[in-house]
Amino acid sequence: MNMRKDAVQIMQASLHAVLPDAAVRRALQAFRQPKGRLVMVALGKAAWQMAHAASDALGNAIEEGIVITKYGHDMGPIPRTVIWQAGHPIPDQNSFDATAAAIELVQPLRQQDTVLLLISGGGSALFEKPLCPPDELTDMTDQLMRCGANIVEINTLRKRISAVKGGRFAQLCAPAQVFSIVLSDIVGDPLDMIASGPAYPDQSTTEQAISIVQKYGLHLSPTILSLLEQPLPHTLNNVETHITGSVRELCTAAAAQCRALGYDPVILTDSLSCEAREAGSFLAAVAQYQARICQAPCAFIAGGETVVHITGTGKGGRNQELALSAARGLSGIPNAVLFSVGSDGTDGPTDAAGGIVDGSTRDTLLAQGIGIEAVLQQNDAYTALDRVGGLIRTGPTGTNVNDVAVLLLRPHP
Amino acid sequence: MNMRKDAVQIMQASLHAVLPDAAVRRALQAFRQPKGRLVMVALGKAAWQMAHAASDALGNAIEEGIVITKYGHDMGPIPRTVIWQAGHPIPDQNSFDATAAAIELVQPLRQQDTVLLLISGGGSALFEKPLCPPDELTDMTDQLMRCGANIVEINTLRKRISAVKGGRFAQLCAPAQVFSIVLSDIVGDPLDMIASGPAYPDQSTTEQAISIVQKYGLHLSPTILSLLEQPLPHTLNNVETHITGSVRELCTAAAAQCRALGYDPVILTDSLSCEAREAGSFLAAVAQYQARICQAPCAFIAGGETVVHITGTGKGGRNQELALSAARGLSGIPNAVLFSVGSDGTDGPTDAAGGIVDGSTRDTLLAQGIGIEAVLQQNDAYTALDRVGGLIRTGPTGTNVNDVAVLLLRPHP
Repeated sequence: MNMRKDAVQIMQASLHAVLPDAAVRRALQAFRQPKGRLVMVALGKAAWQMAHAASDALGNAIEEGIVITKYGHDMGPIPRTVIWQAGHPIPDQNSFDATAAAIELVQPLRQQDTVLLLISGGGSALFEKPLCPPDELTDMTDQLMRCGANIVEINTLRKRISAVKGGRFAQLCAPAQVFSIVLSDIVGDPLDMIASGPAYPDQSTTEQAISIVQKYGLHLSPTILSLLEQPLPHTLNNVETHITGSVRELCTAAAAQCRALGYDPVILTDSLSCEAREAGSFLAAVAQYQARICQAPCAFIAGGETVVHITGTGKGGRNQELALSAARGLSGIPNAVLFSVGSDGTDGPTDAAGGIVDGSTRDTLLAQGIGIEAVLQQNDAYTALDRVGGLIRTGPTGTNVNDVAVLLLRPHP
Repeated sequence: MNMRKDAVQIMQASLHAVLPDAAVRRALQAFRQPKGRLVMVALGKAAWQMAHAASDALGNAIEEGIVITKYGHDMGPIPRTVIWQAGHPIPDQNSFDATAAAIELVQPLRQQDTVLLLISGGGSALFEKPLCPPDELTDMTDQLMRCGANIVEINTLRKRISAVKGGRFAQLCAPAQVFSIVLSDIVGDPLDMIASGPAYPDQSTTEQAISIVQKYGLHLSPTILSLLEQPLPHTLNNVETHITGSVRELCTAAAAQCRALGYDPVILTDSLSCEAREAGSFLAAVAQYQARICQAPCAFIAGGETVVHITGTGKGGRNQELALSAARGLSGIPNAVLFSVGSDGTDGPTDAAGGIVDGSTRDTLLAQGIGIEAVLQQNDAYTALDRVGGLIRTGPTGTNVNDVAVLLLRPHP
């Protein structure tokens, strides 16, 4: 029982550390007030929280700002800041209008001015100005999807059709400086991928773009073909980038709280990307061995973003599947608790953030006639965990830096 | 290159430690010469090696012996020992005849005598004396398979139809003592499962047996129905059991050799049971994180038995899939080597024991036009690894105590 309480404390402390507020404040420690004007552009699903934190921290220093976020993500006014809500994952007219307003804000700036650019996941759809008619872009995207092009290939072409992606927004800000804070929601922090890298130089070449067109025999409009030959910036000398609130910080914060509660923590990885239920099985196998040999309380931490292949019609999410799957291997271990939680507070299409299980979970479910194998086959982890008090509910946290799973063990009494 | 050499040394040392010879010798350290006669019964796929090692170690002390192993596993004469080869995984007449000979050998023994019983995997089929006509047993097994009974349920019924399973062979040895050495090939060393536990008391009850019949509505012959009511021994007071050569010893030996070569080892688990390629992905994620933070050479060890779900028609095995899958995440890490190897020396239906990969494997394959994702989809890891010197070949080792995967890392230069 106490171990479950510890688990909840560890979960709360790690989520807190990567909230946009805390994360933006940490990154702003490197920020120096410009001689000239300071404007703010915030993009993505966490744009409001990031802008709010920056406004709080910098006060009147920010002359003017724009927030571009998803519908339903406007949490109230921010001083001198216009808040736009727009389409996600498909851009809509609001995306285009908001982007135009952001360009209008930064274009008049001079060298002594600074753009505080706050980037979070979802920015690719919310922040867009296509350089061709929208239907031509849609057609190209459709062709790429149908022919099985990979995400790198798709991005190589799409960035060239955009006025703001692939480093081009930073070019529009020049000669002003860009202080970019990126709340990373992709494992490994690939800055060219997050929000399609509006202030990050792109390394792809025109030759690569053309060869993708040839490889798949794409039929593209003359406008698009000429756009594909326009280079993207390979370097940007007006940008300083700070990654914050990443899954690494999520794991580090979990480890710190484990230590504070007397568990010796081992961060196994911050780059998990395998199937959720198999990660659960792997961590349970770690528990089986370590429970036998551990001499003192210990913790094993794995961050990242697992995947779920849907085989059923149930309700759940990757963190819930990981936890429920682990419950099989944890079964019978007296002092083991495992939780897995998504930092955005919404795991899959559910109102839960993740799941928490222990050595008794499997038998408690069995006593109710519920077999974990069948539940996983149905992707119905939510329903099963709900029956045994195994759902973690935090509500939306306003951030998204992937997930963390923590296994707590104590020596047998 | 040196790290690959280290990996090969670690692999060889760990396999050597669990060879029946070394494992049996370790277990025999607890053996005390009986006052009376000493006879030997060796069962399973490693029966010849275990018997040979025991004969070597105990010399003329063994008066008489029987080896019952799989066709093709007789490696030559052993003094005063009859070697039987029989059907596996389906018992044949040789299985029944050999079992009858073993019973004949032990039944005349007295209290001061000892049966040295050497048990390895595969013994369930090789060592059998059904108590009903064979066709009735086949019919029961078929019904159980069709109705989806689990392995525990199947064993609960099958043991009752056998004269030697579920502890009954030890009863046939009484009043003689049984010194049993078990080479464990099942993760977790479940002694009731290995060779169906000929010298291990069974905890199932007659009530459980009857309720399985009712649950599935089985139609069984009167002979079988009356056999199901016969109890199995819940205790055995003439048996001393030593488990040896288990996957735990495989991991421990790997760790010891890592340490000898200057790598600080962490055994993550000895109970791995997840999908092979997902275990590879998990270990690669561990590599990505640890490669960034490690200050000194280190090693991560995971033992157990992963599974492969076949989706293609290629050639491979679970260790090869684990290694090849890991090569994706290892890609670009300068000082990382990972191998996964089956202790029996035959991984899947191939002549390889496992696979070895490093940070360059993925790109070397790509340069040959081979994408790992597609290879895994085809279950064709053997062919791909063969192209990059990634196959481990040991030849059959004569043992089977599951697999071990080892990840070696050195700090960046």
